[in-house]
Amino acid sequence: MRGYDPDGAALDRAVALGAIDAACDSVRAAVSDADVCFVCAPVSALPGLVEEALAAGGEGVVTDVGSVKRPVVDRVPDAERFIGGHPLAGAEASGVEHARADLFDGATWYLTPAERSSGILYERLFGLVAALGGRPAAIAADVHDRLMATVSHLPHVLANVLVGQAARELADESQGLPATGPSFRDATRVAGANPALWRDIFLANREALERELDAYLAALQEVREALRAGDPARLAQWIEGARADRQRLLEADLAGGPVSEVRVAVPNRPGIVAQIALALSEAGINIVDMALYPAPDMQSGAIALWVAGEGSADRAVELAAGLGYAAAPVDSGG
Amino acid sequence: MRGYDPDGAALDRAVALGAIDAACDSVRAAVSDADVCFVCAPVSALPGLVEEALAAGGEGVVTDVGSVKRPVVDRVPDAERFIGGHPLAGAEASGVEHARADLFDGATWYLTPAERSSGILYERLFGLVAALGGRPAAIAADVHDRLMATVSHLPHVLANVLVGQAARELADESQGLPATGPSFRDATRVAGANPALWRDIFLANREALERELDAYLAALQEVREALRAGDPARLAQWIEGARADRQRLLEADLAGGPVSEVRVAVPNRPGIVAQIALALSEAGINIVDMALYPAPDMQSGAIALWVAGEGSADRAVELAAGLGYAAAPVDSGG
Repeated sequence: MRGYDPDGAALDRAVALGAIDAACDSVRAAVSDADVCFVCAPVSALPGLVEEALAAGGEGVVTDVGSVKRPVVDRVPDAERFIGGHPLAGAEASGVEHARADLFDGATWYLTPAERSSGILYERLFGLVAALGGRPAAIAADVHDRLMATVSHLPHVLANVLVGQAARELADESQGLPATGPSFRDATRVAGANPALWRDIFLANREALERELDAYLAALQEVREALRAGDPARLAQWIEGARADRQRLLEADLAGGPVSEVRVAVPNRPGIVAQIALALSEAGINIVDMALYPAPDMQSGAIALWVAGEGSADRAVELAAGLGYAAAPVDSGG
Repeated sequence: MRGYDPDGAALDRAVALGAIDAACDSVRAAVSDADVCFVCAPVSALPGLVEEALAAGGEGVVTDVGSVKRPVVDRVPDAERFIGGHPLAGAEASGVEHARADLFDGATWYLTPAERSSGILYERLFGLVAALGGRPAAIAADVHDRLMATVSHLPHVLANVLVGQAARELADESQGLPATGPSFRDATRVAGANPALWRDIFLANREALERELDAYLAALQEVREALRAGDPARLAQWIEGARADRQRLLEADLAGGPVSEVRVAVPNRPGIVAQIALALSEAGINIVDMALYPAPDMQSGAIALWVAGEGSADRAVELAAGLGYAAAPVDSGG
């Protein structure tokens, strides 16, 4: 396995760590005769690098791992030897020193073959992705980018805007900054994530993201109208719809049966989360999501647990009660 | 302590559980001669009930616990004996059987005295709130409602709209419902929460919420323009601003010093969360927020931990490493 990086020190570390066998001093040297070439770089640099890799010749397949596919696909339209890729895996930490053999285990790995992509090269790439532990899934580049705009890029934009608005408005009030509460924390958790990376992603997927933003703006405008109209039935129906939608998306996302929410009231002592997580684990209950809601005094609070499987919520409530904590399933019917 | 509830069975349970000493068959009977009267009901019912409690006469103070204050204050303008209230505490589970003596411990309890509110009655209410464990904080009813619109009501609206849009658009794609990922899960966690309750809150705080929505719509429109303009510097600056804002709000929210994020890569085995939470607790590190990011295969994943205090992030990374898990601080500088 050969590698090239414009940063020589990074190349040396990659060799020292065994991530590659040989360091090359150019894209051309690394790519020539390769069966498969992975181009990994910030999304803004990908189109040029993919072009360079293809130009280096050879008969192997060239792929990339960028989270937006259209800019690359537009640059190398229908090249026989290029197949775009995007593994849904990664970590905050970057650099070869954070490489892990199990990074792709079970991860969906989108591949975007185009009309002229070689079938033989697609099969080769598919097999390698599967051998790395990934789950290759073919998808059109356009569909991929719209999908990411919906479930990832738009939520990041919304969080950034919300946190900015709150900071501005709360600073205006004489109250200073108040406790913001769990719904605000959840809604803004990704706000401000890696500015350089996200700037590039937003720009690269500009077209799909603008469409998403327009749809969102229109839907938000509708809620605003419903509010102005003061129609209780319309508002309640809208919230009921959101509840059903969230449930459906969450269940599609996770194996293990229907997902229910349980709230456990707890003192905010060290080890309580641990104790409850352990008890549920031992009982074979799968916690698929979790949120801590400390009370303002940080002395008490609640843990929200989303557990998967028929009957899991009731079991979790019993287990928490057995440990001395008041718990209740959150009624999903409204 | 006397109580009244239109639901006789609820009254019986309250007496049986010792939450009240005597059940009354009317508001008038419960309120007469009371030093303090708490009106607890859905926000849409509050104005009428507060009026009824005041009309019952006596010399005590009448307060409520509604999460929106303007509708009540508008109905009983400047009544000497009425002081609005809103404890920032509560649980998903309602009903007297879920009453807890420590529910208000350390919770901010907003009080909205008006110009003619009796000083003596305010002092009495203040003392009782403090005796219940709450932290009374005076605030103008208008400011209170704007504040709640910003940090609570708006985030709920945004989550509802996002989850609806995603469900609609993902259903259109041939892909079926894909894994939505952590940013989407965080952004939609409160979507569809208690429709009847939230319908009433949205309507009761319509004016402030419309203002918030308009500001949000305008800010989102600006981002849309920045995207269309394709200006990298403007986008990066906007994300950097969001990062700083989030940090500031999170730190204002919590005692214990600056908050930093740490990501720990973990196998998704039972007990791992417990093990890490325990290790950090034992080392005296305060986890102020936490999110689980399972990988698609549910075999591995990451835990994001927000820890408070100078040097806590580095300590947490060391402790995780000591347990055999790769961890890294998430650089808050971008």
